[in-house]
Amino acid sequence: MVRARDTYMEQPDGRVRVVIEGVKPEIDSGRFPAKSVVGEKVEIEADIFTDGHDAITAVLLYRKEGHSKWTETPMELVNNDRWEGSFLATELGHYLYTVTAWVDRFKSWRQDFQKRVEAGQEDLNINLLTGANLIAGASGQASKADSRTMQEWVRTLESAQVSQLEKIELATSEKVAKLMDKYSDRRLAVTYPRELQILVDRERALFSTWYEMFPRSCANEPGRHGTFKDCEARLPYISEMGFDLLYFPPIHPIGRTLRKGKNNAIKATADAPGTPWAIGAEEGGHKAIHPQLGTLGDFHHLVKKAKEYGIEIALDIAFQCSPDHPYVKEHPEWFVLRPDGTIQYAENPPKKYQDIYPLNFESEHWRELWEELKSVFLFWIEQGVCIFRVDNPHTKPFCFWEWCIAEVKREYPDIVFFAEAFTRPKVMHQLAKLGFTQSYTYFTWRNTKQELTQYLTELTQSEMREFYRPNFWPNTPDILTEYLQTGGRPAFMARLVLAATLAASYGIYGPAYELCVNTPREHGSEEYLNSEKYEIKHWDINRADSLKDFIASVNKIRRENPALQSNQNLWFHAVDNEELICYSKHTDDLSNIIMIVVNLNPRNTQSGWVHLPLEPWGLDAQQPYQVHDLLSGARHLWHGADNFIELNPGKCPAHIFRVQKSIRGE
Amino acid sequence: MVRARDTYMEQPDGRVRVVIEGVKPEIDSGRFPAKSVVGEKVEIEADIFTDGHDAITAVLLYRKEGHSKWTETPMELVNNDRWEGSFLATELGHYLYTVTAWVDRFKSWRQDFQKRVEAGQEDLNINLLTGANLIAGASGQASKADSRTMQEWVRTLESAQVSQLEKIELATSEKVAKLMDKYSDRRLAVTYPRELQILVDRERALFSTWYEMFPRSCANEPGRHGTFKDCEARLPYISEMGFDLLYFPPIHPIGRTLRKGKNNAIKATADAPGTPWAIGAEEGGHKAIHPQLGTLGDFHHLVKKAKEYGIEIALDIAFQCSPDHPYVKEHPEWFVLRPDGTIQYAENPPKKYQDIYPLNFESEHWRELWEELKSVFLFWIEQGVCIFRVDNPHTKPFCFWEWCIAEVKREYPDIVFFAEAFTRPKVMHQLAKLGFTQSYTYFTWRNTKQELTQYLTELTQSEMREFYRPNFWPNTPDILTEYLQTGGRPAFMARLVLAATLAASYGIYGPAYELCVNTPREHGSEEYLNSEKYEIKHWDINRADSLKDFIASVNKIRRENPALQSNQNLWFHAVDNEELICYSKHTDDLSNIIMIVVNLNPRNTQSGWVHLPLEPWGLDAQQPYQVHDLLSGARHLWHGADNFIELNPGKCPAHIFRVQKSIRGE
Repeated sequence: MVRARDTYMEQPDGRVRVVIEGVKPEIDSGRFPAKSVVGEKVEIEADIFTDGHDAITAVLLYRKEGHSKWTETPMELVNNDRWEGSFLATELGHYLYTVTAWVDRFKSWRQDFQKRVEAGQEDLNINLLTGANLIAGASGQASKADSRTMQEWVRTLESAQVSQLEKIELATSEKVAKLMDKYSDRRLAVTYPRELQILVDRERALFSTWYEMFPRSCANEPGRHGTFKDCEARLPYISEMGFDLLYFPPIHPIGRTLRKGKNNAIKATADAPGTPWAIGAEEGGHKAIHPQLGTLGDFHHLVKKAKEYGIEIALDIAFQCSPDHPYVKEHPEWFVLRPDGTIQYAENPPKKYQDIYPLNFESEHWRELWEELKSVFLFWIEQGVCIFRVDNPHTKPFCFWEWCIAEVKREYPDIVFFAEAFTRPKVMHQLAKLGFTQSYTYFTWRNTKQELTQYLTELTQSEMREFYRPNFWPNTPDILTEYLQTGGRPAFMARLVLAATLAASYGIYGPAYELCVNTPREHGSEEYLNSEKYEIKHWDINRADSLKDFIASVNKIRRENPALQSNQNLWFHAVDNEELICYSKHTDDLSNIIMIVVNLNPRNTQSGWVHLPLEPWGLDAQQPYQVHDLLSGARHLWHGADNFIELNPGKCPAHIFRVQKSIRGE
Repeated sequence: MVRARDTYMEQPDGRVRVVIEGVKPEIDSGRFPAKSVVGEKVEIEADIFTDGHDAITAVLLYRKEGHSKWTETPMELVNNDRWEGSFLATELGHYLYTVTAWVDRFKSWRQDFQKRVEAGQEDLNINLLTGANLIAGASGQASKADSRTMQEWVRTLESAQVSQLEKIELATSEKVAKLMDKYSDRRLAVTYPRELQILVDRERALFSTWYEMFPRSCANEPGRHGTFKDCEARLPYISEMGFDLLYFPPIHPIGRTLRKGKNNAIKATADAPGTPWAIGAEEGGHKAIHPQLGTLGDFHHLVKKAKEYGIEIALDIAFQCSPDHPYVKEHPEWFVLRPDGTIQYAENPPKKYQDIYPLNFESEHWRELWEELKSVFLFWIEQGVCIFRVDNPHTKPFCFWEWCIAEVKREYPDIVFFAEAFTRPKVMHQLAKLGFTQSYTYFTWRNTKQELTQYLTELTQSEMREFYRPNFWPNTPDILTEYLQTGGRPAFMARLVLAATLAASYGIYGPAYELCVNTPREHGSEEYLNSEKYEIKHWDINRADSLKDFIASVNKIRRENPALQSNQNLWFHAVDNEELICYSKHTDDLSNIIMIVVNLNPRNTQSGWVHLPLEPWGLDAQQPYQVHDLLSGARHLWHGADNFIELNPGKCPAHIFRVQKSIRGE
């Protein structure tokens, strides 16, 4: 056990006067890294101060893990002793950073001296000599050329022949300040006692558009088991809708013992295909492919074909076994044995899941189990998969995930792990902190303006913004929400726009989504009736009422507008109608401002006045400005901060406006 | 430099499944201790959770620094994975604490088993055997007697002769749970990686009532320099007002060189007494007494006499020197030398303070300087002083204070250090974190309901509550606020009640306060006209309009009502008038509830409806309850949460009600 006090750098010298604290980001005292993506500006803040009124110089130090040399960049005082610095994350992997600061004697002297001059103090000779002494001291540390320059300055400041006015001009000049900065005396500098970390992922870790689909339901003709070849045929459709990730439920052989039937029936009919999450059969386990989907070669072909469409294949990894999984025979020590010698099936008393055997992470052979599970990821990475959606990670130990993800990313830093945990907040946060790249969220059940505003404020403004990358899903194969069940097509449109514009990453489970499938198994249930979790479906993706064109428009808007590709820039705006929600995102340079209004009531037209922040957007409140509805194509000239909005959900429940200065002639 | 990751306890075993984080209090990752006082309950919280649904047992570990053995006390789940535990601080000094938790197999088994029983599952034999195995395992760790008992239980649970009903009763019995708790398997326990600290002070560190007075102005007859003997004569007066701390500006010899005159005049008249903060003359420095005040013997006598009145003497320690201070000759190396060989006087350019030499903490001889300054505190401690008000600590290095206070308190843990820093928030916070027992605050300038509510909420609800002990001063010799200048006697009464009831510690600078002295040196200045900082005053403390009786009442109320002796229990209540502020404090057991209403407008009568939290106070909303105005003595029976208040500032601008159940007959 380590006493925090002992780890704090002992002050070796009582003259070290600067305090550095409150560094941000710093997750759990540096226990976990904050997150960024390649090309993003990493912003670091800290409280930095000293006693008295002396001036401070502070620098941010950063380096790529593995490099021993720090790069240094200046920090600036923002206000209230808060300083800020930043660097650009250019490579995948971990960066380290910390902060160094010191009392800057020359800067202090200069700042005081300028006040004396401004106050018209007359005899400044002693003060000029003090300045000269500081320059003389620094010249001892300088390069030959610089030293000569500085000694010349000292001679001027000490000369009886030079007028005080000339000396003042020299002493307060920028050239002197610049050279004194270069040789600032750091002997009494203090460095923050912790090196903190930023984990830099690839861009898709932040901005991604997911489409979930059951491969076995992809056959063109009803009644046939879909294959990877059928999935290939579906690629143009998925690509046209604008998705860049195609994610499959488990593709492994499905267990036969105690197989579940249609609608999760305990007794399955002989021809029941089973659920893909009952993983493992005599054909193999987590590294095998369900024979009816095709071969490993077919899978490779699909991955390659998808890449041509700019689509990556994501796999669902669910660490659980059917009773027929090869592990059961080969490694019974990885399961819990009951007193009668049988293997313990999954339970959440009083519920029993006899068709699923959970792995026992408290096994004495946990090391071998960990290695094997890691090898599952490595196997699929070798098959071309770079993105994993992990099923129920919160039912496996946190320390396993931390180890496993770190191990995989050490070799393959571009891998994305998406945590499918819908559970208590602190558990979900922990999974994100320890390494999951993206996380499911409670968005699925946040429907009202108040719920959305509160939840999104937490995600984008609290410390969560540093480590929790939300991925918004309006539906999943497990979740058909009441809002979708009862709101009809407008509800599907509204929730899609919300997911796609509130979060940089979102996804849908299709074709159920674009076809607005909304019948639950029973009243009060969030399960789909006749869910394809238990049966093979045939979807008519060409139905005239499909949302596919609408989805394509929304995804095109996301691709073309960088403001929508980040989370932290979200800003809610006032609307005087509780059923209308209004928010915006903009790029740092204001070159791209997107403002969204959604009617949350799928049944009735709603109208109201939105109030917009013209000045922060760089718009002249006295001039008209243009709002261009990227969904409808309509362009309007608006005047002033307050504008009237009306949305008929039967037509389209949302506006996605691009806001810009009015250009003459438009 | 220490990498935080390296200091985090490495998981030696991948089966350790519990996570402990978010421990509170934890100041700056454990860099600083939180604060408590003897007799206070120290409450510790933490987020504790594991994967899946297993049950956790968590304990709080604590020990007095220097003791090697932890004491253990159970923690309880509050909600949302937040756990809580507490211990009683009984001794002065540092306590250490941390948290240990583990997945409790038997508790998990028992909780699942009870669900099975409740759900009416029939064949529980296997589950009973699993329970029996857990008991058998624990019996191996048990005492002989306990082991025998447990083996007997195992036999019962395994016996074919015992009915399932009997077995269920045994397995779920409290006696089994209790013994299994005692021998709970901690092999996979995790301990929070940091040992955190609580600094326990004496009670007066939290609850104290200060009276500041210039000893030289204490003579009974005008024109004479007051002495410690005169101070003794003033003790009954101070005691009757209810103060338990009498605090003096510096009592050391006053410099003659460049002595300041009346109203801080640069040229002093020959008989000017000088300011006590120009410390040091040929008679001595920080360890000497100004001859006109008396001898060290007189001081000892005063300290002893004060103690008889329950009053402690607090000294102002100002580490700065007049040009005549012995240090200047004996230790010129402790000062900054100017290029012309003279010693640098204090400056805040363009202002100059030629009568004050600041100490140079960047001296190469800083170690000797530190030791000497520490010895000043030790000297006065040996003379019986236990409380120091430290002048301008924010102009001396933080690391000096941290060292000095720790050194002094190691030997004398009952010493109180009160930081006189009116500066930027983070600097004030740092001084409190590093060891100052109490701190001045911005209360002095917080006048409106919004200002007071916001500031007090920060002090009592943010992390500041853990380390920042506020001491509220409505005036000081340096600060006569505009509110007091313009508000007359009602303003002095209102500010006194606010200070005395919002904060557990408060003080006034008298007799200027009780005599409602409110003339500034000039318009816009917060300096007193003819301030006794620069001259000797004679106060007529028996003036009929003195607030002394009012102050005595308020301080008596503070003494008699434990609710007013703590800060964290402050609670604001709604009043429908911006000029009225209403708040309460109550003891944990609700035996003492004090509710205060103050009219913040010193000119006009204000009235309004207050809204009170009857249910949280344990009052029946259907029954009348009693409010007893401890200031006026009036008792009222109130009904319901909303009650009408009217306060005429000309009479008394405040109510201090004791709220209690109505007792029959009153």
